Amino acid sequence: MKKLIIIVLLFVSLTSLINAQRKTVHLPALPGYVTLKCDFHMHTVFSDGNVWPTVRIDEALRDGLDAIAITDHLEYTPKKDFIPVDFNAAWKITEGYAKERNLILVHGTEITRKMPPGHFNALFIKDASIIAKDSVWDSFEAAIKQGAFLQWNHPGWKSQEPDGIPKMYDIHKKLIKNGWLHGIELFNNSEYYPLVFTLCKQNNLALIGNSDVHGTISEIYSKPEDTNRPMTLVFAKKRNHDSLKEAMFAGRTMVYFRDILAGKEEYAKPFFYQCISVGKPFYQNDKSLFFEVTNNSDIPFYLTNGIANAPVNVTLAANSVTRVVLSKKVTIPLIYDVRNVLIGEKEVLKVELKY
Amino acid sequence: MKKLIIIVLLFVSLTSLINAQRKTVHLPALPGYVTLKCDFHMHTVFSDGNVWPTVRIDEALRDGLDAIAITDHLEYTPKKDFIPVDFNAAWKITEGYAKERNLILVHGTEITRKMPPGHFNALFIKDASIIAKDSVWDSFEAAIKQGAFLQWNHPGWKSQEPDGIPKMYDIHKKLIKNGWLHGIELFNNSEYYPLVFTLCKQNNLALIGNSDVHGTISEIYSKPEDTNRPMTLVFAKKRNHDSLKEAMFAGRTMVYFRDILAGKEEYAKPFFYQCISVGKPFYQNDKSLFFEVTNNSDIPFYLTNGIANAPVNVTLAANSVTRVVLSKKVTIPLIYDVRNVLIGEKEVLKVELKY
Amino acid sequence: MKKLIIIVLLFVSLTSLINAQRKTVHLPALPGYVTLKCDFHMHTVFSDGNVWPTVRIDEALRDGLDAIAITDHLEYTPKKDFIPVDFNAAWKITEGYAKERNLILVHGTEITRKMPPGHFNALFIKDASIIAKDSVWDSFEAAIKQGAFLQWNHPGWKSQEPDGIPKMYDIHKKLIKNGWLHGIELFNNSEYYPLVFTLCKQNNLALIGNSDVHGTISEIYSKPEDTNRPMTLVFAKKRNHDSLKEAMFAGRTMVYFRDILAGKEEYAKPFFYQCISVGKPFYQNDKSLFFEVTNNSDIPFYLTNGIANAPVNVTLAANSVTRVVLSKKVTIPLIYDVRNVLIGEKEVLKVELKY
Amino acid sequence: MKKLIIIVLLFVSLTSLINAQRKTVHLPALPGYVTLKCDFHMHTVFSDGNVWPTVRIDEALRDGLDAIAITDHLEYTPKKDFIPVDFNAAWKITEGYAKERNLILVHGTEITRKMPPGHFNALFIKDASIIAKDSVWDSFEAAIKQGAFLQWNHPGWKSQEPDGIPKMYDIHKKLIKNGWLHGIELFNNSEYYPLVFTLCKQNNLALIGNSDVHGTISEIYSKPEDTNRPMTLVFAKKRNHDSLKEAMFAGRTMVYFRDILAGKEEYAKPFFYQCISVGKPFYQNDKSLFFEVTNNSDIPFYLTNGIANAPVNVTLAANSVTRVVLSKKVTIPLIYDVRNVLIGEKEVLKVELKY
Repeated sequence: MKKLIIIVLLFVSLTSLINAQRKTVHLPALPGYVTLKCDFHMHTVFSDGNVWPTVRIDEALRDGLDAIAITDHLEYTPKKDFIPVDFNAAWKITEGYAKERNLILVHGTEITRKMPPGHFNALFIKDASIIAKDSVWDSFEAAIKQGAFLQWNHPGWKSQEPDGIPKMYDIHKKLIKNGWLHGIELFNNSEYYPLVFTLCKQNNLALIGNSDVHGTISEIYSKPEDTNRPMTLVFAKKRNHDSLKEAMFAGRTMVYFRDILAGKEEYAKPFFYQCISVGKPFYQNDKSLFFEVTNNSDIPFYLTNGIANAPVNVTLAANSVTRVVLSKKVTIPLIYDVRNVLIGEKEVLKVELKY
Repeated sequence: MKKLIIIVLLFVSLTSLINAQRKTVHLPALPGYVTLKCDFHMHTVFSDGNVWPTVRIDEALRDGLDAIAITDHLEYTPKKDFIPVDFNAAWKITEGYAKERNLILVHGTEITRKMPPGHFNALFIKDASIIAKDSVWDSFEAAIKQGAFLQWNHPGWKSQEPDGIPKMYDIHKKLIKNGWLHGIELFNNSEYYPLVFTLCKQNNLALIGNSDVHGTISEIYSKPEDTNRPMTLVFAKKRNHDSLKEAMFAGRTMVYFRDILAGKEEYAKPFFYQCISVGKPFYQNDKSLFFEVTNNSDIPFYLTNGIANAPVNVTLAANSVTRVVLSKKVTIPLIYDVRNVLIGEKEVLKVELKY
Repeated sequence: MKKLIIIVLLFVSLTSLINAQRKTVHLPALPGYVTLKCDFHMHTVFSDGNVWPTVRIDEALRDGLDAIAITDHLEYTPKKDFIPVDFNAAWKITEGYAKERNLILVHGTEITRKMPPGHFNALFIKDASIIAKDSVWDSFEAAIKQGAFLQWNHPGWKSQEPDGIPKMYDIHKKLIKNGWLHGIELFNNSEYYPLVFTLCKQNNLALIGNSDVHGTISEIYSKPEDTNRPMTLVFAKKRNHDSLKEAMFAGRTMVYFRDILAGKEEYAKPFFYQCISVGKPFYQNDKSLFFEVTNNSDIPFYLTNGIANAPVNVTLAANSVTRVVLSKKVTIPLIYDVRNVLIGEKEVLKVELKY
Repeated sequence: MKKLIIIVLLFVSLTSLINAQRKTVHLPALPGYVTLKCDFHMHTVFSDGNVWPTVRIDEALRDGLDAIAITDHLEYTPKKDFIPVDFNAAWKITEGYAKERNLILVHGTEITRKMPPGHFNALFIKDASIIAKDSVWDSFEAAIKQGAFLQWNHPGWKSQEPDGIPKMYDIHKKLIKNGWLHGIELFNNSEYYPLVFTLCKQNNLALIGNSDVHGTISEIYSKPEDTNRPMTLVFAKKRNHDSLKEAMFAGRTMVYFRDILAGKEEYAKPFFYQCISVGKPFYQNDKSLFFEVTNNSDIPFYLTNGIANAPVNVTLAANSVTRVVLSKKVTIPLIYDVRNVLIGEKEVLKVELKY
């Protein structure tokens, strides 16, 4: 039999290189601020997660995040037969690893109780082990003493609230009265709790969106619509740990998941106008004007409820230039609802296209 | 049997909307110019292509192009039993269609002969039917009389040059001597002719890259590495037909296909530096400096042949921030070859990262 | 400057090869029959489509179809200024092309009128030009004389029936009374008309699903959920033109689009059981039995409304083995509704898993 | 401001369901055997891997595997500051988990030494902790006493053999002489060692292919060409632990990675013919015969070096029917080399298409 020379090309995996790269997420800044992409809720093998802590850093870089907090449970450590309980383990393992990769790492932990009060993340802490107490109130107090930002997690989680609707129990009201509660998750994993909009507005709290990941980010958010994990956008003065903390306590946040953006109107409105630009008409005929709207962000905007004689719906695809053909009969402002920019429990952003 | 209420969700196709949108290709401008993305070689049912001319406009928008030319063959019309020959048909059908979509349409045609001289596109013409002549030289002359930009197509096409190497026959030399030849295809479809670099430099011609599409763009360029069709980048003073024409005759072009960029060093070097920015070191330890390189373009850059003590290879992924860890022993300029930016027949761009 | 040897790998496009290959669609046969995958409604440049007729053959092979009909409009030829009207052009161009590729080509045309009666495809005809008549009834008669299978197209198309609901006008009733109507489209493009189930059952007509494609199949069905174009499954005695025709007139059809299967129960039930097989329990503990269900088809099945103590929902993913964990308390038959197998206007298939 | 009713659809993640499903890998059986898809080399947080052991089971199901071995290092436990060393931990954690999912779990460990002798997996063992010895020979002996199948891992790994070429040192020869060595990795992760073909043939050892995964399978094998991780195909009498063990010791294996299949000709040849079937000519004209080859497997076959007058290359795409057009001049057997089926260090499979 004739012998053949065989060339088999086997390529070196680029995974290790990619781990040191941070994807650019195309989102604009607000004037005077930088937009930090953050996820403040995730688990590792040190509680009920399935990965080693450094994996969370690698995933964050791949997703283009600026800051994360690893928040293993204080009260739920199902792997303790094999891994001794150490509430600061993930922090110790990742602190230097994050620093060498220019990722802002926030020290955090999750206080994990039955409802009420449910689950809370304490962020910007110094030592998680001191926060593990028998009484949940003692835990809250220990966290606050460390200067923690306290975030109420998934308040409508069906395992704790079977109807899916967040409820303010006395302990929540007491937290707010004390000034100890600073934010609530509007999005968690793939859940959304509209009522959180109202709770945050009434009590001047930050809106938060997090992944609460236990497995692998790329596998959990692998569907075509999963362009990005749930994240909190924080409008900070600078890209560093202390500016992030200041912005969080000041409540300068929005939430971003898939093609949905949610936040208070004071941030959502200027953010939208930073994403898009409207060109002058490039063509006209007897009946119509033709102009273009450029969307420089990764978020598509679904404009709807157009005025009379204008297109009812306009989709401004992400990173695209969209042509709008407008009847010359239109003489009033070109107002639209942006269906996927939520600014309240039952309210979406209203915008004007000025061509 | 129990009757069930069935809800079947069937979504309206967004194809029609998408056709009116132009994808943003993230490529920088050179100072004083805009970068026009162009494809000057394509066919329709009016020669041996398989689609109606408006399809070429829709495809161009989807690919984020600024300008195209439809260039049906003058001498090859295999569908003439069913479609009467009309050399200006595609132009008539698409002129208004392109205008309403803000796409620059260049009137063109393909002179299609055996080698020598092979195939040529005449661009920026007024009437293709006048260019159809028995003698190829008469065709050239008729095109030049219309002010045409004459482009030599796929000079190393194996059907005409079995060894794949372009050859300058007397007729090509005569064209050049007359000043009638203005550009040559360096890339065509999925072919690359390195010698064209030398021919264009010696004779001061524009480097061109085109798709020469006959079927459907999205099906032909459907492999994972096909991030974009072959295109000519033209550095024009403004985004309009006449500025495009001026820039083409001035030879201000580069070629872009997949992750390969090719052009004269005078354009390639500033273009590369417009794509990237190098940050100040964000961290250091005893041994190393850590800094980041941001690549804001859609083109990854593969840096190789690093100096002593520096990383041998650095991949600057597209739309990403890449961390570089550099030994403190390095004291000389950080020079790299950019393996995928071609500036000559056997030459790649050399760059310096200034951190 | 040092000169480098550059190796640029440019691969030959495999498109041409792929065009001669037929994807295997994993769908079972019914006992005594083969399952032919068919699309009986498509357009080309010879009416208001955008592609040359051979493209339809290439697309069909790529999608794994066994049979198609090209059905250009008789009464709507908007390209006639450039392409002379020839109602048999697509047939003449593709007849030999299909034969050499082992694709069954059905000669067809579309009778295109206002509602009533709307649009109809005449399939298995001999000469489309004879069917073009002023009176629609004359067209019907001319088609029937050629032995045509007459199919009512998109009866709830909103351009003709603004409420989206098909209506039987006198002319439809007369067609049925004459035995001239043989099938109705239940699916067209991305639309679904549930009432067609009832109309077909009452009048003993075949259920049909077609693409009605005008552009390019791969671009229109490009969303992740578009695993396949709408198609008619025909249960024919053999894989040839005449067996296909016999099966169509006998009404042995189902419709398949995305993950939805629709048809009369007499076909849907045995088809489902040919797709899946249920294994014996492979494991048990005190409380539960563990067994596996193998789905050898490309269609996932969404089982729902499980009995007490059984899983409420079971998804049998396509080409997968699904584990079912069943409480030992279950002693009655394991009955499910298959949410995505429609057998009537408001009815889904009910099945039993026998483990 | 008008209040809007907002409906935001957020879908339940299907990840948990998918974890209980095993993808069907379309590979045929050899007569008298079942084809078990196996990966015998993987790591977890109990050595230098990054995931919890149950993740390996979930990944295996998703990839359609029948059997795996988790083989944490005995001599390399870099996480021991946080996780106490327990060489049987992964086995204890996954034994029941695998049983409930119908996955064959093989108890294994990795003996991890400098070269010589390098790294070895001991498979089908009973207690890994007894195998951890100071002397590597003592480790081998302890493994063999437990009835282990001993597999030499990545013998040409560049960290241990800088030239990439496996070398037989005295200790390897002694292992073989003792009958203690049973297989060698031909593929590991994304590396291929052609010489292993010769070593296995000379010494009657099993050819093995494994992932040696440390991170997440779906992220490491995420490139388009990564249709599957490297795996060992084992031809066992039944799908159970003991039949698998018998087949391994009998050397009835092949290796499968991306679109490459490798194995001894006695298995590769019948396996190829089980994958494909050649149809009778469906059409002919004056010059050519037209017939089809059906490939029912997930592996494409690249046929090359065709005889005179036949197509030089034929690609039998996976799960597809490929048309072959053959000149009637061909009268001798239609022989091809299958470029991607390796049967020796420099040898590919030769096959005949009998139409």
